[in-house]
Amino acid sequence: MELNPPNNIGKEKEFRMRAEIISIGTELLLGQIVDTNTQFLADQLALLGIDLYYTSSVGDNYERLLGVLRQSWQQSELILTTGGLGPTEDDITREAIAGLLDEELEVEPSLKQNLVNFFVQLDLEMPLSNIKQATLIPSATAILNPQGTAPGWWIEKDGRIIIAMPGPPSEMQFMWRNEVFHRLQQKTKAIILSRTIKTFGLSEAKVDELVAPLLSSPNPTY
Amino acid sequence: MELNPPNNIGKEKEFRMRAEIISIGTELLLGQIVDTNTQFLADQLALLGIDLYYTSSVGDNYERLLGVLRQSWQQSELILTTGGLGPTEDDITREAIAGLLDEELEVEPSLKQNLVNFFVQLDLEMPLSNIKQATLIPSATAILNPQGTAPGWWIEKDGRIIIAMPGPPSEMQFMWRNEVFHRLQQKTKAIILSRTIKTFGLSEAKVDELVAPLLSSPNPTY
Repeated sequence: MELNPPNNIGKEKEFRMRAEIISIGTELLLGQIVDTNTQFLADQLALLGIDLYYTSSVGDNYERLLGVLRQSWQQSELILTTGGLGPTEDDITREAIAGLLDEELEVEPSLKQNLVNFFVQLDLEMPLSNIKQATLIPSATAILNPQGTAPGWWIEKDGRIIIAMPGPPSEMQFMWRNEVFHRLQQKTKAIILSRTIKTFGLSEAKVDELVAPLLSSPNPTY
Repeated sequence: MELNPPNNIGKEKEFRMRAEIISIGTELLLGQIVDTNTQFLADQLALLGIDLYYTSSVGDNYERLLGVLRQSWQQSELILTTGGLGPTEDDITREAIAGLLDEELEVEPSLKQNLVNFFVQLDLEMPLSNIKQATLIPSATAILNPQGTAPGWWIEKDGRIIIAMPGPPSEMQFMWRNEVFHRLQQKTKAIILSRTIKTFGLSEAKVDELVAPLLSSPNPTY
């Protein structure tokens, strides 16, 4: 049986960013919720012409998340994370990214003020632990989140981009549409066109024989 | 800001299998479909008391799938894959597992006969490429799939188990319920109980303070 390793005929005409998505949260690993964020982002990356090569989920565990981030850092130029930006002890995305980049978390005064204002509006006392949501590392800038208390992080370092977004789909999608999409669009000019071909009366293998010439090309991707 | 690395207080009383799920198919990375297989399997693993530590998706690309499998082989005792068992050129799960284990694919006569019978029933000619669905490697035994042409693979080697299942959810779930679940149940006696605690009027951070003692224990997991 012959293997079918990838056939890199031809060169890419433009730089194509290799992306991956990491969704963070033990609830994903217990099957309690469907990870709709990953599908949303996969669809959006296709619109942007950014090649998504991997997606993964990992629980709220510092060492395991750090391991996944290290792997991503080696193989992708764009790393999108969702989840783990909450105020609780098990929200460890900021800590793990700081660990990956060997940088220190520091409270950013303007983010702290936003948090205080958020709780004042709700007439609630801000729990001490929420302060971690006002932290940054030197490589990160905050991405505003008017829908909640967790700002995102936008990081550019060593030719790579990390974008950390909150896990609740409404917050993530709002942040994506209003802050992230356009900035990423400026990084790439390419688009992906996805075409569904419907067939009738042919077996899957027969159809494969007919489209085989396309599959040995790098564009379309396979 | 203090990090919160995992706190391994106490020893596990029993051997707990570390599992991961790999879903295979470029369509997942284009955002065209939601990967419901992963949530189904995550839920089922929780029922079996098997700790799921990672899930990932990768496209129909031999080198990238092989890379993901090698990583899984290092970190997990149980690897479940879905997808990539079809008859077409881009279905490369069998080839990648063979590459991982450095074994050769060989046609298994009884599986070939099953395939021939399947096509005879449909009054269709079997395309030549379907023959790859009748292949095994020495470490693999076939898992029957009365719902389609792709048998699964059950592999036990070097203290690890790999279970390769087809991607169509109806085929995967049938195979899981009828062939896989009970065999895995024999491998573990533990169960996970998942409890949702509803709160009212407290911030997330305040709730976290109240349940903090639980989070530093290995059981419940976090």
